[in-house]
Amino acid sequence: MSNQNPVFIPGPTNIPDRLRLAMQVQTQDHRAPDFVQTFAPVLEDTKKVFDTATAQIVTFPASGTGGWEAAITNTLSPGDKVLIARYGVFSHRWIDLCTRHGLDVQVIDCPWGSGAPADQFQTVLTGDKAHEIRAVLVTHNETATGVLSDIGAVRRAMDAANHPALLMVDCVSSLASVPFEFDRWGVDIAVSGSQKGFMLATGMAILCVSQKALDAMETAELHRTFFDFRDMMAANATGGFPYTPPLQLIYGLRESLKMLFEEGLPNVYARHHRLAEGVRRAVDAWGLELVAQSPDLYSDTVSAIYVPEGFDSNILTDHAFNTYGMSFGVGLGQLHGKAFRIGHLGSLTDAMVLSGLCTIEMAMADLSYPITLGSGVAAAQEHFRATPGNRTEAAA
Amino acid sequence: MSNQNPVFIPGPTNIPDRLRLAMQVQTQDHRAPDFVQTFAPVLEDTKKVFDTATAQIVTFPASGTGGWEAAITNTLSPGDKVLIARYGVFSHRWIDLCTRHGLDVQVIDCPWGSGAPADQFQTVLTGDKAHEIRAVLVTHNETATGVLSDIGAVRRAMDAANHPALLMVDCVSSLASVPFEFDRWGVDIAVSGSQKGFMLATGMAILCVSQKALDAMETAELHRTFFDFRDMMAANATGGFPYTPPLQLIYGLRESLKMLFEEGLPNVYARHHRLAEGVRRAVDAWGLELVAQSPDLYSDTVSAIYVPEGFDSNILTDHAFNTYGMSFGVGLGQLHGKAFRIGHLGSLTDAMVLSGLCTIEMAMADLSYPITLGSGVAAAQEHFRATPGNRTEAAA
Amino acid sequence: MSNQNPVFIPGPTNIPDRLRLAMQVQTQDHRAPDFVQTFAPVLEDTKKVFDTATAQIVTFPASGTGGWEAAITNTLSPGDKVLIARYGVFSHRWIDLCTRHGLDVQVIDCPWGSGAPADQFQTVLTGDKAHEIRAVLVTHNETATGVLSDIGAVRRAMDAANHPALLMVDCVSSLASVPFEFDRWGVDIAVSGSQKGFMLATGMAILCVSQKALDAMETAELHRTFFDFRDMMAANATGGFPYTPPLQLIYGLRESLKMLFEEGLPNVYARHHRLAEGVRRAVDAWGLELVAQSPDLYSDTVSAIYVPEGFDSNILTDHAFNTYGMSFGVGLGQLHGKAFRIGHLGSLTDAMVLSGLCTIEMAMADLSYPITLGSGVAAAQEHFRATPGNRTEAAA
Amino acid sequence: MSNQNPVFIPGPTNIPDRLRLAMQVQTQDHRAPDFVQTFAPVLEDTKKVFDTATAQIVTFPASGTGGWEAAITNTLSPGDKVLIARYGVFSHRWIDLCTRHGLDVQVIDCPWGSGAPADQFQTVLTGDKAHEIRAVLVTHNETATGVLSDIGAVRRAMDAANHPALLMVDCVSSLASVPFEFDRWGVDIAVSGSQKGFMLATGMAILCVSQKALDAMETAELHRTFFDFRDMMAANATGGFPYTPPLQLIYGLRESLKMLFEEGLPNVYARHHRLAEGVRRAVDAWGLELVAQSPDLYSDTVSAIYVPEGFDSNILTDHAFNTYGMSFGVGLGQLHGKAFRIGHLGSLTDAMVLSGLCTIEMAMADLSYPITLGSGVAAAQEHFRATPGNRTEAAA
Repeated sequence: MSNQNPVFIPGPTNIPDRLRLAMQVQTQDHRAPDFVQTFAPVLEDTKKVFDTATAQIVTFPASGTGGWEAAITNTLSPGDKVLIARYGVFSHRWIDLCTRHGLDVQVIDCPWGSGAPADQFQTVLTGDKAHEIRAVLVTHNETATGVLSDIGAVRRAMDAANHPALLMVDCVSSLASVPFEFDRWGVDIAVSGSQKGFMLATGMAILCVSQKALDAMETAELHRTFFDFRDMMAANATGGFPYTPPLQLIYGLRESLKMLFEEGLPNVYARHHRLAEGVRRAVDAWGLELVAQSPDLYSDTVSAIYVPEGFDSNILTDHAFNTYGMSFGVGLGQLHGKAFRIGHLGSLTDAMVLSGLCTIEMAMADLSYPITLGSGVAAAQEHFRATPGNRTEAAA
Repeated sequence: MSNQNPVFIPGPTNIPDRLRLAMQVQTQDHRAPDFVQTFAPVLEDTKKVFDTATAQIVTFPASGTGGWEAAITNTLSPGDKVLIARYGVFSHRWIDLCTRHGLDVQVIDCPWGSGAPADQFQTVLTGDKAHEIRAVLVTHNETATGVLSDIGAVRRAMDAANHPALLMVDCVSSLASVPFEFDRWGVDIAVSGSQKGFMLATGMAILCVSQKALDAMETAELHRTFFDFRDMMAANATGGFPYTPPLQLIYGLRESLKMLFEEGLPNVYARHHRLAEGVRRAVDAWGLELVAQSPDLYSDTVSAIYVPEGFDSNILTDHAFNTYGMSFGVGLGQLHGKAFRIGHLGSLTDAMVLSGLCTIEMAMADLSYPITLGSGVAAAQEHFRATPGNRTEAAA
Repeated sequence: MSNQNPVFIPGPTNIPDRLRLAMQVQTQDHRAPDFVQTFAPVLEDTKKVFDTATAQIVTFPASGTGGWEAAITNTLSPGDKVLIARYGVFSHRWIDLCTRHGLDVQVIDCPWGSGAPADQFQTVLTGDKAHEIRAVLVTHNETATGVLSDIGAVRRAMDAANHPALLMVDCVSSLASVPFEFDRWGVDIAVSGSQKGFMLATGMAILCVSQKALDAMETAELHRTFFDFRDMMAANATGGFPYTPPLQLIYGLRESLKMLFEEGLPNVYARHHRLAEGVRRAVDAWGLELVAQSPDLYSDTVSAIYVPEGFDSNILTDHAFNTYGMSFGVGLGQLHGKAFRIGHLGSLTDAMVLSGLCTIEMAMADLSYPITLGSGVAAAQEHFRATPGNRTEAAA
Repeated sequence: MSNQNPVFIPGPTNIPDRLRLAMQVQTQDHRAPDFVQTFAPVLEDTKKVFDTATAQIVTFPASGTGGWEAAITNTLSPGDKVLIARYGVFSHRWIDLCTRHGLDVQVIDCPWGSGAPADQFQTVLTGDKAHEIRAVLVTHNETATGVLSDIGAVRRAMDAANHPALLMVDCVSSLASVPFEFDRWGVDIAVSGSQKGFMLATGMAILCVSQKALDAMETAELHRTFFDFRDMMAANATGGFPYTPPLQLIYGLRESLKMLFEEGLPNVYARHHRLAEGVRRAVDAWGLELVAQSPDLYSDTVSAIYVPEGFDSNILTDHAFNTYGMSFGVGLGQLHGKAFRIGHLGSLTDAMVLSGLCTIEMAMADLSYPITLGSGVAAAQEHFRATPGNRTEAAA
């Protein structure tokens, strides 16, 4: 009966009952007035999660990777120069995507565990007198390392360099879980998806696009049809869709937004911080180390944790799955075998997080990790007790 | 988001997804062949859970209390003498039911925490030379105290007294979770329900009835219509129902049986024992006492736990619910304020049970109970590690 | 793929998606505050459907038959005299129930197809100078014959006889589909269920009880425990339940009431009348006869239709099921083989009703009934066109 | 309560309960063995629906449009010449897609209502001595006009011209509803989706790819990442996915295939033909004309029907929706205002189709169309009666 356990992968996240019900929509005619009246307010409300008053929301029936592809194909042309820092698998994937689409990618390689190097960005951009760099692409939350980067700092670096490049941000595993300030940070395109902070099934890429990015669209020459902003926005403007819309996810998103607003976004963020901190207390009690290099980089949605020298993290995650029926994130890329990850985003309670800590703790003990059984759990319990959540508000 | 937590009341139990889906049946014509072909095998398969080859299954759209009422009204007449031992709220309720139905109830009062007093039964029955006692009514698992009684011992006592009374057993909170041996124990009517070991919604009373009980039906004069075995059995014989059947629960029961048989009843019982023992290790580590007086009485489906002197168990369960969004069983009857209960039956995993232990432990710590945070959890973890379950077989 | 067709049995009715979702509730602690806050308003809102400001709602996890049993066991004593008219299978069943519970039943036999004989009631009651008759039991909508009786006329007859008997009404297949006026008609107990006008799964008996009936409860000596109003009302008064409540149905009823109120009860009744009239136009076009003897008796929830001489209605309903995958009501009791029934209550649209008429018409043609293919459908289409419904209000 | 009506748009189609349940999957770790074991057989079974033993299945979390984009970007390079005939909105869209991706599109314009012009293809291909045309793109079922083209004839034309171009076929609205013979017709890429014949929610593009197309992939220079066959096939080969998979749709597809195979593909096709023919009989009885020019072009999944001179088809479909709560397909492109469409694919029964015919007939009568009420319905009834389906086999 293991399938009753929550998952602790960093997305897709556990889908709360309320959203599972909301997605059980029978087929409707998407050209009928009912759909029109449903979709427009959903797009409008989504802006609140990005914290924008000025941008447009564009969605596609695709995964986050599709959202990334939409971001670049709608704004750039073959041969365009873009600047990206690599500090994990997901920032690496963006580099790969740009390369395969014929862009000229300038990569800043950073140690995994570090975040977006605002100062290095500033140096490079300052040096780019001709303003050949058309876009800076940043992974807000590097899911592979559990690092949350400071997007405001990147914006300040770009401003200091007086550089007109577009700022594109991958917030797939951060949006709706930690604060995101599209307008204040001067983001041009933010890319997210349905299956993380929105707690829905996988299948919808959710983008937020600034006017500046929309202007870039006019001259962008990368090929796109399925992911074309213009078709989507034109159809959306009259409540429609350029092709068959993912009805179930649209109704799910409507309910997800309702849940987020009922709990209150600040409470959502506080809950994620509190649960993440509980996990970090456990890691500390176990005597293990986070991949994230310093507290200012700690992600409140996922923790990547080094296993001790001589241990293989894949054996640990396999054992947790096979013996206790619980899924944790494996170490990706450089961290393969060296780290495991605990996803702590989306629909989670203290009790659910503790069940994850109990389980990985048992798994580590089974494999003779040098930890004290119960120590991590007790540290998390202590933290949760000291910082009580708001059950009443959080109740669905 | 507290509604994502499992419940730790001793029923209704957490409904696994598979059974929630199975119960989502659209209306069908219960007079059509499809229903006929569905229901008969379900009744047949249910016998396996009672471990009977000789008895009949009779179900009613009602709660377990309705099942009790069916048991007595179909077999007894006003003024009939019955023998019952009271050792908790649920055995008490059976006494109340019999009294209200005009039976002459001979009560043996036992300390709460003890079980069915086979020796006292033997004494009374031996003394009943005229065989005026028509039935002995026993609560197999006293949900209020966490005591599992030895039904085989009761049967031996009856046999030793050479007494022909019917043996009726309330197994609402034990069936499909701990072994039940209808035939071997010589039970005449066993009463259970859909919402405990069967992991379904509340609403179906499930009875197993021996030929001897069916014979008693012929002379029984207590009034019944809705609960009349004869109407139900006659209709069932041709695949029908004497009134509108609870389709959703019937399809649910079909799938529940499938799940139980896939896991294997011995594995189901072993899992319940293992999880229960983990809870008991935690109780011991906390330095608390079970209500059940001795290990042979410990229930593998629910533990009733005394709070220390000077503490009020209701404050504890309220606090756990209000602060951590988790439901535990309150102390009932004599145990009001003095004990709380952890239900550990139905669809549960190690991780789920640990989440309950973590939570009640935090709640106790918050209320300054003299316990060490993490101690109970660690004891349970240790037990679960040492006795690994069979995830593969158990997986739904 | 026949299971996609609606059913046209007169209950259980087709469950709309919205209610199927509402019933997908995971287990909750019914002793927790959430349940308390949920259940009380549901009971209060249910009064509106009975149109009462003075009575109490009492529900049981049971079928309508259980509700009938509750009605008599809570108000009457063995040997009490009751008056019932028999004009169909369901009124007959009430007679049987009373007889089996030891009541002294005075039966007025009426032709099937007629309704409650207010004048004969008046004669009998006037003759009962000693007021020995304790209750008059009336089937509002006789589901077997498609006859709706005039309860107001029964009340006037009782008043004219100046008789103090209780008035009990079976409104299982009428409530929430046609007007019911508990207070104005002076009803004392009305018995309904979840699976007809409320469009829910089977499993909840829903009763409305006057103060006069509650007073009768004090002296009623029929045995009851599961169905005892006092236990239920006492528990309900503090938001609880005397045993495990049927959570799924309670949440379902909450949503059902919401749907009914959103559509508006007058619109719900108008819709049922309109759909029923469409069916009757079809019957007329086919040249067939209703069992109901006159238009004032026509039921808006079910039509019982005589097949022509020489035809067997069971063959017709079997053929419709086996060949076209659609369920219609069979002829019950005296009408076995002589009539079939079309249920037209609950969640139905014009299109759904027409699909039923198309299908039974094909089945009749297949069996060489003397009807013109398409004639009944066209008559119903004509009626629906002439009396357009209010789609916007009705939309869920 | 209009949302209970089936939709008669030509997709997304009505989702049967069984598939709605199958898609209610809670989040799982897609890197865990369970997923691996689930996905590989689904891909394998999907081949049977395409009727191929030699090709590969590739899926993407996207709509059919995304599938088209995948087809061309994986096999072609900018400037490549492709040959497409335009005979409806969907064939037009493929032209637009190719143009926007920088291909050199040679268009053969055909009258709407005609199908793929095999003879003209042959002429053009024969003239293309240099074999500059890299692909012939054909819409199997033109959803806008209700025309099913003969793909075998196209293949014969290509063979007659001895031309090596790839043959790409859009079978979004035909697959799993009418016969498709990938291998026998020599198709290179066939593009379908989850929301038509597979009866699932929208969100999965399903492609079948020949070895020849896979070879073309090696030199194809159109940019792609999200839609890259190589990434998908490499990940699929070990049971994985290159990004987050659409779990719900994958489990849905598994169950959809089970349903199709249980009914039997030949029976599925026969059912579609029978239902389609019923609709065509109704059209004929109304005295209306199909857009499809001749019987050999009639689609068994959708019928496009001209409204009489002087009528506006948009008013008709709006009226059907607003008054009767039923959705039909509007006239697209050239047919805007001139034709409406009845989708008759996916999970449909005789009764469901008749409910659609009844409704559009009422709507036409309301708008004073020169038709006889009941005439179309009767014609369809007559056809359905004469060609009984196989309810037993078809039952889910």
